[in-house]
Amino acid sequence: MIIGANTSKNFFDNLEEEQIQQCGIDLRVWKIFKIEGEGVIDFSNEKRKLPNYIEIFNSEKDEHIKLDRGVYIVKVADYIKIPENVAGFAYPRSSLLRMGATLYSAVHDPGYEGRPEYLMQVFNPITIYKYARIAQIVFVECRDVKGVYEGIYKGR
Amino acid sequence: MIIGANTSKNFFDNLEEEQIQQCGIDLRVWKIFKIEGEGVIDFSNEKRKLPNYIEIFNSEKDEHIKLDRGVYIVKVADYIKIPENVAGFAYPRSSLLRMGATLYSAVHDPGYEGRPEYLMQVFNPITIYKYARIAQIVFVECRDVKGVYEGIYKGR
Amino acid sequence: MIIGANTSKNFFDNLEEEQIQQCGIDLRVWKIFKIEGEGVIDFSNEKRKLPNYIEIFNSEKDEHIKLDRGVYIVKVADYIKIPENVAGFAYPRSSLLRMGATLYSAVHDPGYEGRPEYLMQVFNPITIYKYARIAQIVFVECRDVKGVYEGIYKGR
Repeated sequence: MIIGANTSKNFFDNLEEEQIQQCGIDLRVWKIFKIEGEGVIDFSNEKRKLPNYIEIFNSEKDEHIKLDRGVYIVKVADYIKIPENVAGFAYPRSSLLRMGATLYSAVHDPGYEGRPEYLMQVFNPITIYKYARIAQIVFVECRDVKGVYEGIYKGR
Repeated sequence: MIIGANTSKNFFDNLEEEQIQQCGIDLRVWKIFKIEGEGVIDFSNEKRKLPNYIEIFNSEKDEHIKLDRGVYIVKVADYIKIPENVAGFAYPRSSLLRMGATLYSAVHDPGYEGRPEYLMQVFNPITIYKYARIAQIVFVECRDVKGVYEGIYKGR
Repeated sequence: MIIGANTSKNFFDNLEEEQIQQCGIDLRVWKIFKIEGEGVIDFSNEKRKLPNYIEIFNSEKDEHIKLDRGVYIVKVADYIKIPENVAGFAYPRSSLLRMGATLYSAVHDPGYEGRPEYLMQVFNPITIYKYARIAQIVFVECRDVKGVYEGIYKGR
């Protein structure tokens, strides 16, 4: 069962009314980064290596940015606290897709909290204004959950 | 809970038997467009600007089209009416992925109706025939929903 | 309702402890392929034609591979048996996204079994070690399901 916006809005600190949709919550851009360097991924995370992120936009001090074709890391402005028996799934906003851009998200595990980061791909040049709503997150009830998320991205 | 195809088939006007899968419904291509011009996205939608779409294929009059690498907007042939406590999620069909193409979809909000548009990315040249089944949509029950979708894409 | 990892771990033969997350299961790379040739997709599958796959990595005999920008087919090492009233949905692992790569998945239909194949897109050079955890799959209960998956990919 999806937990609609009348309840999931409580998983956030302070939302604007426009962010509260029917069954999900729209998420706002906070910072945008370019990726530099190479990544390494393995089974145990012992060899895991993340590339560098170069900040190119910050909604706190920049009005807008024009992005050319390419991929970017987007950090969301909204701080989420996900309950222990709930998981979150983020999707590109329909308007973002219609402009020729999309974003990719992992599962937001039960117990996760923080400002998520998504990978955004721009196919067609786009101008993004500060705090633009670019994604929608929906929350789904879970049973038989094993513990809560305690990974390295928690609280960031 | 996902509402399986034995019920979700009723969210459509007239489906072909092949479209009715186990838990979802396969969606057919209607029109394909190229994107021209730039997009603008913001928080309030006041500055929202969509690029232009140039129709390059229409299943009503074209037999097939060969698509090279690139991105396209695909409008689906199937008209969907989503109940007020249900949301829809579309995924690329496995066969489309295996050919080296994929598609991106937003959340289909409770109360939405119309023929959805998706962003399709072609990595490897592909020939698409008229009314090809390219996506599968599944429908999920929601509780605590805030109103119904009344956005600009409703009924299109 | 998502069926959390304490139950969904039973849909697999032999998992490592690290694969069992809170609400989903991490999936490991087995083989990676390049795509050659063109695909054809239609409504009835009569004209369906898949391109050729050229194996470029196999976790059983290779230690790691460096992948440049591009798309690849990834076959997962974990054999899944999905119950008749359950569907599976796979997402890129957060670490994979943070490195500048993602993967695309179709719906894993009720009754499907086998080692799934996903389309992986690499935007930023990445080194993948054998059996690296690259995706997380979550399982969702379904009602009103129409039969079980008996397509050509079953058991592969």
